[in-house]
Amino acid sequence: MLSALFQPESVAVIGASRSPGKVGYEILANLIQAGYAGRLVPVNPSADSILDIPCFKRATDAKVRVDLAMIAVPPAHVKAATEDAIAAGARAVCVITAGFKEVNEAGAQLESEIRDLCARQGVRLLGPNCLGLINTHHRMNASFAKKMPAVGHISVFSQSGAICTAILDWAAGRHLGLAKLISMGNKADLNENDFLVGLSADPDTRVIVGYLESILSGNDFLRAAETATARKPVIVLKSGVTQAGAKAASSHTGSLAGADMAYGAAFGRSGIIRADTFEALFDYATAFAMQPLPKGNRVAIVTNAGGPGIMAADAVEQSGMTITTLGHGATTALREKLPAAASVGNPIDVLGDAPPERYVDALVAAQSDKSVDAIVVIFTPQAMTRPAETARAIAACADGSKPILVSFMGGQDVMPGRAELVAAGLPDYPAPERAVAALKAMCDYAAWLRRPPRVLTRFLVNRRRVERIVNRHVKTRQLQMGEAQAKAVLRAYRFPVAPGEMAVDVEQALDAADRIGFPVAMKIASPDVVHKSDLGGVKLNLDSPEEVRDAFDLMMLRMRERVPNARLEGVYIERMCPRGREVILGMTRDPQFGPMLMFGLGGIFVEVMKDVAFHLAPITREEAMQMLESTRSFALLKGVRGQSGVDVGAIAVALQRISQLVTDFPRIAEMDINPFIVGPPGGESVAADARITLNPDAPAL
Amino acid sequence: MLSALFQPESVAVIGASRSPGKVGYEILANLIQAGYAGRLVPVNPSADSILDIPCFKRATDAKVRVDLAMIAVPPAHVKAATEDAIAAGARAVCVITAGFKEVNEAGAQLESEIRDLCARQGVRLLGPNCLGLINTHHRMNASFAKKMPAVGHISVFSQSGAICTAILDWAAGRHLGLAKLISMGNKADLNENDFLVGLSADPDTRVIVGYLESILSGNDFLRAAETATARKPVIVLKSGVTQAGAKAASSHTGSLAGADMAYGAAFGRSGIIRADTFEALFDYATAFAMQPLPKGNRVAIVTNAGGPGIMAADAVEQSGMTITTLGHGATTALREKLPAAASVGNPIDVLGDAPPERYVDALVAAQSDKSVDAIVVIFTPQAMTRPAETARAIAACADGSKPILVSFMGGQDVMPGRAELVAAGLPDYPAPERAVAALKAMCDYAAWLRRPPRVLTRFLVNRRRVERIVNRHVKTRQLQMGEAQAKAVLRAYRFPVAPGEMAVDVEQALDAADRIGFPVAMKIASPDVVHKSDLGGVKLNLDSPEEVRDAFDLMMLRMRERVPNARLEGVYIERMCPRGREVILGMTRDPQFGPMLMFGLGGIFVEVMKDVAFHLAPITREEAMQMLESTRSFALLKGVRGQSGVDVGAIAVALQRISQLVTDFPRIAEMDINPFIVGPPGGESVAADARITLNPDAPAL
Repeated sequence: MLSALFQPESVAVIGASRSPGKVGYEILANLIQAGYAGRLVPVNPSADSILDIPCFKRATDAKVRVDLAMIAVPPAHVKAATEDAIAAGARAVCVITAGFKEVNEAGAQLESEIRDLCARQGVRLLGPNCLGLINTHHRMNASFAKKMPAVGHISVFSQSGAICTAILDWAAGRHLGLAKLISMGNKADLNENDFLVGLSADPDTRVIVGYLESILSGNDFLRAAETATARKPVIVLKSGVTQAGAKAASSHTGSLAGADMAYGAAFGRSGIIRADTFEALFDYATAFAMQPLPKGNRVAIVTNAGGPGIMAADAVEQSGMTITTLGHGATTALREKLPAAASVGNPIDVLGDAPPERYVDALVAAQSDKSVDAIVVIFTPQAMTRPAETARAIAACADGSKPILVSFMGGQDVMPGRAELVAAGLPDYPAPERAVAALKAMCDYAAWLRRPPRVLTRFLVNRRRVERIVNRHVKTRQLQMGEAQAKAVLRAYRFPVAPGEMAVDVEQALDAADRIGFPVAMKIASPDVVHKSDLGGVKLNLDSPEEVRDAFDLMMLRMRERVPNARLEGVYIERMCPRGREVILGMTRDPQFGPMLMFGLGGIFVEVMKDVAFHLAPITREEAMQMLESTRSFALLKGVRGQSGVDVGAIAVALQRISQLVTDFPRIAEMDINPFIVGPPGGESVAADARITLNPDAPAL
Repeated sequence: MLSALFQPESVAVIGASRSPGKVGYEILANLIQAGYAGRLVPVNPSADSILDIPCFKRATDAKVRVDLAMIAVPPAHVKAATEDAIAAGARAVCVITAGFKEVNEAGAQLESEIRDLCARQGVRLLGPNCLGLINTHHRMNASFAKKMPAVGHISVFSQSGAICTAILDWAAGRHLGLAKLISMGNKADLNENDFLVGLSADPDTRVIVGYLESILSGNDFLRAAETATARKPVIVLKSGVTQAGAKAASSHTGSLAGADMAYGAAFGRSGIIRADTFEALFDYATAFAMQPLPKGNRVAIVTNAGGPGIMAADAVEQSGMTITTLGHGATTALREKLPAAASVGNPIDVLGDAPPERYVDALVAAQSDKSVDAIVVIFTPQAMTRPAETARAIAACADGSKPILVSFMGGQDVMPGRAELVAAGLPDYPAPERAVAALKAMCDYAAWLRRPPRVLTRFLVNRRRVERIVNRHVKTRQLQMGEAQAKAVLRAYRFPVAPGEMAVDVEQALDAADRIGFPVAMKIASPDVVHKSDLGGVKLNLDSPEEVRDAFDLMMLRMRERVPNARLEGVYIERMCPRGREVILGMTRDPQFGPMLMFGLGGIFVEVMKDVAFHLAPITREEAMQMLESTRSFALLKGVRGQSGVDVGAIAVALQRISQLVTDFPRIAEMDINPFIVGPPGGESVAADARITLNPDAPAL
């Protein structure tokens, strides 16, 4: 589908120029210089030839089918140029020209006209306002970036042209090859989703790298990302992390969730590896491109200096990986081969005077040791060291069975060694911590690939009943559901809810209490009373009909005194909840990624400690358990210091039920179950209070 | 004092060799090659001259006074060589030779003999087992590291020779100058403390950088560090973070504290800037060496690309600094000078085609704007950009009033710009996030310099009484103080403690309760009963003499039944504590840094969330408040969601009292006040339970 873009047999440059420095010149020059082997069609109404290539007034004049058209004419002429390109047979158009959506409304209008024009003809559009694209395997530099990278296996899509040029310059400095580089510009048509899918099917691409500032559609992104990560690692730097800002939210869940949480949840769900910095992006990418994935997280360190070995070991432990204990065989082999002063523990210290052979001995031992999943090699330049030879020796003995990541520390003497490493496909890092961070990303991705298949539980529920409740509320514009209605919804979805009924007078209240069984709680039901307890609208532990009668009458009295204008719907009578650990479960809808489920421990943990976990719906049982386990307070649920734990499974089921409910009903905009009281394992858990907010503008189903 | 080491007028190389590659040759060659201007005295019993310099059988034969002797003879001859050096007048000796403390006990013995030999003569000893030292301002490379760095203002001391060589190679690659570089080796005599103090007085040194794996004396280190940080920034990388391991501890405080916590507390106390990675060490050092300190934390960003600008802004906000709002004057000036499409907000986007002048316009505006404390400049290589010229223009307009940190992103085209920046004294970073992290370190150090003077409160206490209690316990080997005794200690130091008394029979219990006033609590006092409640050894809320009698008799009955062999000291009767927020206060002694105070919120927060703060004693009121504020749960103490706060000041005072108590009594090894119940502001707070562990081997006072 993207072959016209990536492997065109002919490229038109519409707006080709005779003036070096102009974009229309640079693109043509770059295509020639990179050795593009297809037909080039410069289009310029007032030139006969440019750079010795015959030039045409219009693309259609060339009498050859154009596959890809690069357009670099002023904004006002882009539409006509696009029409010309399509008439000449172009199946892909890349508009370099800026001055569209990014400048004003008129530009946005023009941009959408051009997009529609392409769409009608089934032509794909890259840009506008972009740098172009590069495919090293096709010897094509269809961009105005001068630097053609070496052939490699990392492909990059970027929402920022400047990031593209910085990457190209950086890759040149590191002698690192790329496969494809795509500057997406305004993303009028082609966007991250197309490139995630396209690059995942590209045999020249081993690793996909993306720089994103925004995405167009959460669902499409998730689908594309999951397609891609199933086949190869995808590493994304998402900027704008703290720009999210607070959004108006009527629930705990909503106030804790932000765009960054949502991106985190989306990346987590789809297996995307998130890079937090520009350097991490390529630190990770080079590791993935060059080395096999580790089978586990047990790391061996080989070093010629104690200090940096300790630094690497610190980083391994802090990352959650393990400094492995070497097997007996490896230890024996090392003891035989290394000098007596060398350390045959882990880190393996081959000493400051280590010749290349000593590194080889250590590497061979670590490579053949079954208790080692990955190897970090550290080299410091000392008096006797030979960086280039050592690098070659390391490369020669690497057998590809386990990832080997290297840190040649320094900046001058070690450089020849670095070049050897890169040439041999060994990723090299200026400091051990960065090698370890890259290895951790590999471990995480390997674990992601090993994850069990996702099986969504579909509970038997009374969906029709919820449909009626929701429709009634939407019709009457009661978008904030009261407790009684919210609990009716929960009951219909078979959440554990204490028996409860509405009563409008004292006799109904007595009847209800009698049916429900004592002790009961009573709560005023009114859309105008939010802080019920403060106003005397809550009575707990009522043990007899007399207490119910007294409480009802007193509550009505207080309401008349304190909120005389409140609309009273009655009193909600409910069986007293059992005791247990209080947790908060919730859902808020992210504008991009849809329903995000939240879990956190009761009040303080959520509000003060922000110790919460988010996950996109729908959720599996395993994912729900992972949510629980990812909070620091999970230890409290399991039980600490002799206190017995609670029924963790009941929380997971409740999260799955929320997932099903909010997936079934898009009009549920936000909900909290706060508290959800969790009983002991095998005991009773119950949704003690709940609020649901509806969005009448969402689709009904 | 270190002048013989750093500015010797003559250097002997004992063990000078004629064989290139041998340490004794390399040192002499390095001294010559670096252009050392003083007298060189090679010592070798079997050579007439080495490298054209006359050679002597013994240093004393040279008939000149030797200031510094470099010793590179086999271990067995080091002692004799040292004697020779001292006889020749050496006031400083650097032993390069390895094979001492680091290999075995005999080596350690020899090392201490050499140290004592030097100490008796007032001669300072560097090493053994080190690389040597470099002083670029003295044109002296007295090391076997070939690389002589350029003259600069960063001085480095390192416990690892390999880190030294890596630093030298790295600095060469970055064209960065150093002042002094010291490899400390085994630190038999000269150590981090000497170099902290020495370098802080060195006019050639602007920034002190240290790599440490261990320190010799916590108190000396703190004193030296405080001397140094008062004069110039000190940046330390401490490795071995996670190696600390659990130490046996009988208190909460002890079990939560580790060596890394202690180093963190020591660095925090003394104003040392901690680098977490090798790269951070020099990222920070170059910023400090080249730029003035910021007066505040309001940051302006200048960029020629949107994406990297966002990345920098993200990093600024995440670090706790502020993206400033530019003043009206700056905004107006920018709007006049920059193209219409440029962004005159913050980040200031000078656009991808920005010539050097546009960077100058933006920098001038930001420099003169009072709402800007520091400037981060980002440059990406784009089609029209001129890296070297832009770097020169930036350097030319930097007026030194505010720190300017630069990130030239890329790795090849931008390199000429990088070289210009370094030459002009502008720190340059490969990615914006690293520039921001360095700026944050500068902000923190500036805030440290601005901190108010430390005023320790000295409370009026009954020190003699504690002395008697402690001595009695030590004499009887009761090293774990019971509640009654611990509370007697607290009372003597005027902690708020509920009135309480010991009773050995029921009549005494009744009398005590009568004096104390009801309601009371009763707790069994026995060194053999730890989990009192579980065994029926605690009764709360006793409201009358009858209840006290019943409780006493029942408690004795249960003890006889359940722990028949326990030694019962009686029953501790105490006024019931008021209600309030429970916090834990404690102290544990770090083997290096002495008493470390701990604060954390009650049970769960400490045990599960590990939300605790540590601080070295003695502590001021401000520092105690900072401890409280540094915990995530501090919001609970201030009051959240309409809940009123508690008497935070009472906690601070209690921490100060613990500080005074444990400083007065070194034999108090660990203590917990758990819980300390904090009342409302102006209300009552009370130490509800306490345990104190004594160390009989510590000095009494």
